[in-house]
Amino acid sequence: MKKINGRFYKQNILSTEQFTKSDIDTVFKLAINYRKKVESGKAITDLKGKILTALFYEPSSRTFGSFIAAMQRLGGGVIPIQGITFSSVSKGETLEDTIRVFANYSDVIAMRHNETGAAQKAADVSPVPILNAGDGVGEHPTQGLLDLLTIKERLGRLDKIHIAMVGDLKYGRTVHSLTKLLLLFQNITFTFISPPLSPMPDEILKMVRKVGAKIQKKSAIVDIIKDIDVIYMTRIQKERMDPKIYKKMKNMFILDAKLANKMKKNSIILHPLPRIGEITTEVDKNPRSVYLTHQMRSGMFVRMALLKLILTK
Amino acid sequence: MKKINGRFYKQNILSTEQFTKSDIDTVFKLAINYRKKVESGKAITDLKGKILTALFYEPSSRTFGSFIAAMQRLGGGVIPIQGITFSSVSKGETLEDTIRVFANYSDVIAMRHNETGAAQKAADVSPVPILNAGDGVGEHPTQGLLDLLTIKERLGRLDKIHIAMVGDLKYGRTVHSLTKLLLLFQNITFTFISPPLSPMPDEILKMVRKVGAKIQKKSAIVDIIKDIDVIYMTRIQKERMDPKIYKKMKNMFILDAKLANKMKKNSIILHPLPRIGEITTEVDKNPRSVYLTHQMRSGMFVRMALLKLILTK
Amino acid sequence: MKKINGRFYKQNILSTEQFTKSDIDTVFKLAINYRKKVESGKAITDLKGKILTALFYEPSSRTFGSFIAAMQRLGGGVIPIQGITFSSVSKGETLEDTIRVFANYSDVIAMRHNETGAAQKAADVSPVPILNAGDGVGEHPTQGLLDLLTIKERLGRLDKIHIAMVGDLKYGRTVHSLTKLLLLFQNITFTFISPPLSPMPDEILKMVRKVGAKIQKKSAIVDIIKDIDVIYMTRIQKERMDPKIYKKMKNMFILDAKLANKMKKNSIILHPLPRIGEITTEVDKNPRSVYLTHQMRSGMFVRMALLKLILTK
Repeated sequence: MKKINGRFYKQNILSTEQFTKSDIDTVFKLAINYRKKVESGKAITDLKGKILTALFYEPSSRTFGSFIAAMQRLGGGVIPIQGITFSSVSKGETLEDTIRVFANYSDVIAMRHNETGAAQKAADVSPVPILNAGDGVGEHPTQGLLDLLTIKERLGRLDKIHIAMVGDLKYGRTVHSLTKLLLLFQNITFTFISPPLSPMPDEILKMVRKVGAKIQKKSAIVDIIKDIDVIYMTRIQKERMDPKIYKKMKNMFILDAKLANKMKKNSIILHPLPRIGEITTEVDKNPRSVYLTHQMRSGMFVRMALLKLILTK
Repeated sequence: MKKINGRFYKQNILSTEQFTKSDIDTVFKLAINYRKKVESGKAITDLKGKILTALFYEPSSRTFGSFIAAMQRLGGGVIPIQGITFSSVSKGETLEDTIRVFANYSDVIAMRHNETGAAQKAADVSPVPILNAGDGVGEHPTQGLLDLLTIKERLGRLDKIHIAMVGDLKYGRTVHSLTKLLLLFQNITFTFISPPLSPMPDEILKMVRKVGAKIQKKSAIVDIIKDIDVIYMTRIQKERMDPKIYKKMKNMFILDAKLANKMKKNSIILHPLPRIGEITTEVDKNPRSVYLTHQMRSGMFVRMALLKLILTK
Repeated sequence: MKKINGRFYKQNILSTEQFTKSDIDTVFKLAINYRKKVESGKAITDLKGKILTALFYEPSSRTFGSFIAAMQRLGGGVIPIQGITFSSVSKGETLEDTIRVFANYSDVIAMRHNETGAAQKAADVSPVPILNAGDGVGEHPTQGLLDLLTIKERLGRLDKIHIAMVGDLKYGRTVHSLTKLLLLFQNITFTFISPPLSPMPDEILKMVRKVGAKIQKKSAIVDIIKDIDVIYMTRIQKERMDPKIYKKMKNMFILDAKLANKMKKNSIILHPLPRIGEITTEVDKNPRSVYLTHQMRSGMFVRMALLKLILTK
């Protein structure tokens, strides 16, 4: 156990690309273990005396709350810093200085920032590990891991999966992160369904092809719904689109009860949330729906596992 | 003890109307017990490993702080979420989705919301208990309970009480909650003193009459000050009133040192705070004043008791 | 030990002027002790069960974060209240009422306020100790103490020191606090370097002369750089100055790598942060630089020591 942990001890978590299959195995084993402990009502004290700074330049109640819960469920403390309250930043302090300040107070920093690459910039100067909690359209590694853990726990496997990703695939960092992680496994088929102006970036497509995974491009959910094991819905960035085009396309990218019922019995429906209307609320009752339950909850356990691995030898 | 606790285990606290006399007795016994422990300097670990989300859509430093203190004094952790920081909400997420998200991270949610009925809406979808920390002009059950506990501890009884409620009785949810709770007890006399446009709602008056409690309507504090056991002052919503009318009426609804000195020796002065000028600061020194001391502090102990009862079998 | 602690038990910390040499010794011994414990990875539980309210009217991520970390590293809990979220204040509540409310929930209040004298005002009504975390251009005693601790730990002494203070010396509360503390020690030489419109106030100069410490006035860093043991850089309040004058003066008040290299081998560079450009980033690598490391970190340990001394007999 000590050896395995050593792999993460004092390491930054910046990108899904850092993770090997064996790393994922380590994180997931511990995450599942924590799930059991929390669900049995046990108080955990693994990180007693440790402090996490949750440094969120861009507000995010969800990821913010998840990191705070994770650290406290491990017995640690939290410095909660959210967007609006950045006095020093408003006084013109650089990201680098802010990071070095909080590194003096805490043992690890989970950072959300609106600029791509900000997490790496922080890691370059920080004497304590940086956990990237999302930087711009860049990376969001803990989201990718929680999505993957949910798939693994619900389907019982990570190989031989057909996943459809739906919505704004160009700017959606969660679909990028999950795609990269899935490429570590065998026999993955991807179906990408997006508005013409928001396709999966070429860079990602290239990575998929390189490892020999299959790609299908479809223009509507209905064309593929019966075949898939996982549907990963994401928000359509309505604000980036011509209202007329939005209205026309809407139906191609919305999952309703009728569509959801056509899915395979053991398939699952994921969404990184918040949703606006991409999944209608009737779908919530569908047993395949895990976006408001298992998937969200996995986030806390993955973050608990990473915090523990990073902070203890 | 186990049986008594069972009554609250995993229950929502949405309205004062849920509470029987025996429930109140259970909560108050535990609250008084916690008061003793805290005041003796003992660290309590009853909720070690548990997490509360303090989800405040409407900012409220007072109730927010009280819930946070209560949970931490029990050894538990807190996810503090306040108005401004709601990224998902600003992205258009529904209350129901937000609640279900935080239910994945925490064992209980204390929610403040500006819409009446929001707490029930939350409870309808939440897999973890909801504690209503005030919803619009609706309910604020923990406030009602802390007011009642303060009366009980200071007067030594909850039967045979004459209470005057003063101020905006139409929109003041605290006076509604306290009135309903007092109706569980014998020989209560109410005196309602309010501007003509802000009377106690008919619905509440009907409830009072139904159980046979007495009602007196007076137009000024001075008319009743010598007879009452409790005066419950509330804010006059100046912003809802014609400035000329406000000025004229002011004197009828303000408690100053001269008036306060006319009260019975063992009577008490309550106010849910914040006050604007309804109680002049000279009154703070009056031994009958408990609004900045005993009453506020009771809030923390009542919330500790409820959290403990809800979260443990 | 008990006797020494008794000196601070339940006391307010409002001003550096409260501190005798022996007090400073008590605080620093404990702070250094906590540094050792934290750095060895030990979880501390000295304030288990205690609650701090961090009541910041004026936002300050740095000091806010430092107090929160300090309290949690001692095993205590925190009510975090920042600027924007003050509902009661926006409803017109007085400082005095707000303080008395939070005093009911917590064992100590660390307060930051934009008005000079606010901390004393709070202490006058508070039944729990007030820790002044900065009030306007008034005091910031924990900053003064952390600066002093850093000097002591790095130079190995507090007597016989030549310190240059640079920047806006008129409105910089940190230089006022540090100057007052240094006057407790022997053979201190001060060099004050500031724009003509922002000199060290007469009141402070008088105090310095009264104890017989030396004062040198220079107009540029370069004139003194080789002689000093400590340079204390502060922000130039650009917003208070004519842009033309700012541009002209800039070079006199900026510490760059070339200047820093001229300093004595064992000298140190301090800055209360945030910096805007008064110290160029190349200086960060200079071994004399402690502003982003030792100095910041000392803040947490000084605050831990004070919290412990205030809250335990």
